[in-house]
Amino acid sequence: MATPRVENDQYAALARQLRADSIRCSTAAGSGHPTSSLSAADLMAVLLLGHLRYDWAKARNPANDHLIFSKGHASPLAYALFRAAGVITDQELMTFRKLGSRLEGHPTPILPWVDVATGSLGQGLPIAVGVALGAKRVLAAPFHVWTLTGDSELAEGSIWEGLDHAGHERLANFTAIFDVNRLGQRGPTELEWNVDAYAARVRAFGCEPIVIDGHDLGAIDAAFARARRADGPTAIIARTIKGKGVSFLENKEGWHGKALDAEQAKRALAEIGDPPSRTFPTLAPDPWRPTERTAPRRPEWKTYREPLATRKAYGEALAALGAARADVVVLDGEVSNSTHAEDFKQTAADRFFEMYIAEQMMVAGAVGMQVVGLVPFASTFAAFLTRAYDFIRMAAISRANIRLCGSHAGVSIGEDGPSQMALEDLAMMRAVHGSTVLYPCDANQTARLVGLMVEQGGISYLRTTREKTPILYTDDLDGFRIGGSRVVRGGQVDDAVAVVAAGITVHEAIAAADQLKQTMKIRVLDAYSVKPIDTAALVDAVRATGGRLCVVEDHWPEGGLGDAVLAALAEAGVARKVTRFTHLAVRDMPASGKPAELLDAAKISARHIVDAVRNLGG
Amino acid sequence: MATPRVENDQYAALARQLRADSIRCSTAAGSGHPTSSLSAADLMAVLLLGHLRYDWAKARNPANDHLIFSKGHASPLAYALFRAAGVITDQELMTFRKLGSRLEGHPTPILPWVDVATGSLGQGLPIAVGVALGAKRVLAAPFHVWTLTGDSELAEGSIWEGLDHAGHERLANFTAIFDVNRLGQRGPTELEWNVDAYAARVRAFGCEPIVIDGHDLGAIDAAFARARRADGPTAIIARTIKGKGVSFLENKEGWHGKALDAEQAKRALAEIGDPPSRTFPTLAPDPWRPTERTAPRRPEWKTYREPLATRKAYGEALAALGAARADVVVLDGEVSNSTHAEDFKQTAADRFFEMYIAEQMMVAGAVGMQVVGLVPFASTFAAFLTRAYDFIRMAAISRANIRLCGSHAGVSIGEDGPSQMALEDLAMMRAVHGSTVLYPCDANQTARLVGLMVEQGGISYLRTTREKTPILYTDDLDGFRIGGSRVVRGGQVDDAVAVVAAGITVHEAIAAADQLKQTMKIRVLDAYSVKPIDTAALVDAVRATGGRLCVVEDHWPEGGLGDAVLAALAEAGVARKVTRFTHLAVRDMPASGKPAELLDAAKISARHIVDAVRNLGG
Repeated sequence: MATPRVENDQYAALARQLRADSIRCSTAAGSGHPTSSLSAADLMAVLLLGHLRYDWAKARNPANDHLIFSKGHASPLAYALFRAAGVITDQELMTFRKLGSRLEGHPTPILPWVDVATGSLGQGLPIAVGVALGAKRVLAAPFHVWTLTGDSELAEGSIWEGLDHAGHERLANFTAIFDVNRLGQRGPTELEWNVDAYAARVRAFGCEPIVIDGHDLGAIDAAFARARRADGPTAIIARTIKGKGVSFLENKEGWHGKALDAEQAKRALAEIGDPPSRTFPTLAPDPWRPTERTAPRRPEWKTYREPLATRKAYGEALAALGAARADVVVLDGEVSNSTHAEDFKQTAADRFFEMYIAEQMMVAGAVGMQVVGLVPFASTFAAFLTRAYDFIRMAAISRANIRLCGSHAGVSIGEDGPSQMALEDLAMMRAVHGSTVLYPCDANQTARLVGLMVEQGGISYLRTTREKTPILYTDDLDGFRIGGSRVVRGGQVDDAVAVVAAGITVHEAIAAADQLKQTMKIRVLDAYSVKPIDTAALVDAVRATGGRLCVVEDHWPEGGLGDAVLAALAEAGVARKVTRFTHLAVRDMPASGKPAELLDAAKISARHIVDAVRNLGG
Repeated sequence: MATPRVENDQYAALARQLRADSIRCSTAAGSGHPTSSLSAADLMAVLLLGHLRYDWAKARNPANDHLIFSKGHASPLAYALFRAAGVITDQELMTFRKLGSRLEGHPTPILPWVDVATGSLGQGLPIAVGVALGAKRVLAAPFHVWTLTGDSELAEGSIWEGLDHAGHERLANFTAIFDVNRLGQRGPTELEWNVDAYAARVRAFGCEPIVIDGHDLGAIDAAFARARRADGPTAIIARTIKGKGVSFLENKEGWHGKALDAEQAKRALAEIGDPPSRTFPTLAPDPWRPTERTAPRRPEWKTYREPLATRKAYGEALAALGAARADVVVLDGEVSNSTHAEDFKQTAADRFFEMYIAEQMMVAGAVGMQVVGLVPFASTFAAFLTRAYDFIRMAAISRANIRLCGSHAGVSIGEDGPSQMALEDLAMMRAVHGSTVLYPCDANQTARLVGLMVEQGGISYLRTTREKTPILYTDDLDGFRIGGSRVVRGGQVDDAVAVVAAGITVHEAIAAADQLKQTMKIRVLDAYSVKPIDTAALVDAVRATGGRLCVVEDHWPEGGLGDAVLAALAEAGVARKVTRFTHLAVRDMPASGKPAELLDAAKISARHIVDAVRNLGG
């Protein structure tokens, strides 16, 4: 074992301070998780002083190690660490959980030393795997990625997706630290202190288990040293005691997520020794900068003339991005020959990540990679992005910039049936804070929207179609924008009815307009930017048609394009000008059939649009 | 090893037929997964003839074994089994994937022998665990639960959540059958034929691995016999060959999810021997009926007078149900002291299921338990139900009747911060086919809505609040209904403005109305049934107020109450009568703070409603 870099009494001194500060700040807040902090205080004291190589003056130093609290509820401990590192004051520590404080109940990247928001358990670990994956395979970075997990969260399947990937990719730069304190929120965990069971699981998933007493400072020190020099991923399985260091809290049920009152805190601090809060010396990283990347070039989009599936155009756009930019990475959930993300391999095979059928790990991987400055695109069938909704929700809280693509949207996929049809994805993605939701209807538009996604902050989502669709756009391809739309039929001030469509239904709406053109002037609006939606174009359509609107979408009626249109008009104050409104959407459970049959059965085909428009215009 | 119940040549004959039928029906369809069917044909032949105890004439015979195709894409094989069991004709088999056929691309319970819809990988296994759990702990049933998984789907964390629970609960009535054919959709799986790795994982998760050659009929037979008599859960890890039985398909890449053309099918059938399709003799279950349950009584709801959190009222309502009905089961994701689902233990401890922090497994468990006629309620923080969205989506395709409760909704939870705040759950749950979405604002209402959920089909969802809320309702408590609402302030034909609220914002709206009552008549509508929403009451509110509406919700602006109100009014044809509309919702990312501070910061507090109403009414 390596010689400890730091004497054990230094570790002990910091551990005392971390315990005291965890109690002090949570008692001041009147809530929080002091006991879950105390169990890991020794682990984190040794990590901070002896092993974490971190430039506290420069959180963005690319050589810094990464430390992700997968057990985000141990935020008092995280903030106590920041206090010990000298980057927050004792005064700020006491603002914990108060309105306006940066020290939220669970850590968020409002703090520069926090990579990602945690607090939904089972997420920090797979995200840390994503950081390590990008660091190893794209950046060839020297830093180590550490993640602290609770033991309750080891019941989440996403933990095992993460360890499986760490093992498969042989991520020697990754170490999970399991704080096995035996007690969950409402009682004992499933495996309690069965550290051998955890070790067997970790080993079976391709990582090296290191079982220790999580309060033995020497053992912790040796474990971290061993983990950093291991030639594969490691998991330190630390048997700990919840509430450790305070006799009346140790290993007691009923203390989860409870702050001590003032009297209890006084007794606890007396036991701990009530150390004066101070700043400790930490380890700097060795200087390192990533290899300078070639400056991004303007991607060379193909220009399409023949029908092509937008999913295929997505793949080809990724290939163009791969050639033009060295920072774009692509992840896919074992369906890259269906989403066509595989095309990226033609130009940047080394930046393509096969995530297998593990959508949570895929989104976590994307989140992790943007932590280290990469520009991730992640794809699977849109229906299966529902598997990762909690990760997407949390990515928004993480202020992450990730790009998702869901293929095989709607009933138009045909024979595979409803399990493979995304019919709730627009609702799901609209209800993500700060999200962008795009739904192209032709290949040229798809390429340009992919280009816009590169620069777009937050969570952006592209919905693609399985079937080939005709080319609508060959002009003004640089005119597509987030928040834009296109009038593809009509557009005069005397249009009788406006049909608002997106993606596959744009083509149905055009067919309807063309059928009706002898008798009625129909405006067809391609609302390719579902969020933000083009309110001005909607208002204009209402004005031109005297408020006769038909929205048609390949999605359940709730939360998608129809809701977006009505909300935009209401917000613009023109709801009252919508005199006649019809919403065509998928209202019955679809089955199998040919794409055209299913569009018709769902009453969102040209024929049904014609009927709806006639009723509106009559 | 047990003596085979059936001669190997019988097994071989059925296996040939299953292969031939899988090819014939997928070729007729022009799509589907013949090669994924061929790899498991020997496994399923031996299961059907030698081990599955199933009354094919009576799918609802409670003594029947259960067989769930977790690899739902092997539907040709599933349907070929039904053909061999004599419950579908060869003619129907040839309707595979055609419009109007019961034989959809992936199996759904439109077929009486299909318990649940599969096709989103990683779901069938945990649902099978749910069936086995209910069978063991509630029904004491003698049947065995079998589930066939692919190997690609073993990368899904939900698989390991399932095996973990099977192991923890020692489900001797559960057997997973891994069809390890090495090839996924776009190439080799992560572990390929490393059956030892799978065995180590299975063992580490508490199940007994049985490794076999999946084409050795004797070995398969012995494995099933061993699995049925094992004293714990088992996983048969069968090394197989994708496309087995057809030389040009065997272990070949590029054949996933592709039907053979007519010429290829002819060659393949010639190799297989093109057996005439026939019905095989199968094994009946031993007669068994579950113990007669006490007839349900009317639950004795408490009547509350003092402020109480709706989450607590949920728990107490579950306790009342536990006493009144023997078929209600409760599952919780290790937060039952927060959701208050733990109160159910007071009356029916044996029907409470601790699912630990594994929300996917929790929802899968609920789906599995309703398969065997139980009435499940499953709860966690509403934010964490996002973790199980794919399972909820699929539960709707399964025509499952499950009841979900999400606690800690919205910013009103206070200090814990955004990771714990559900702000997208209404959008998510509205966009589930046939769902019911309820959001009570007081304890008495909560109890009655829980009572209604018992009888409600499909996916029903109850959103509860962390903080105590005052009692609003002591009269007409039996008047609450799915699709209902209550006017809690105003209600005259000359109300100036209507405020539509639900849950926590009802109380803010009332405070606003009371503040304004000297100057303005405000109608406050408690829209506790968010889906279906009370359109008539909304239309009436529009009429009374001349179309002055304010919707206020503790949710992102997208997909929640605001969208629901606008959609209902548009569908009712009265959008044009909404002259002034304001939508108060959570528009910025919240942080930590006290509940009242956060409601105010999000601009959904009484103060902001007063301002909004003044602007509308002015």
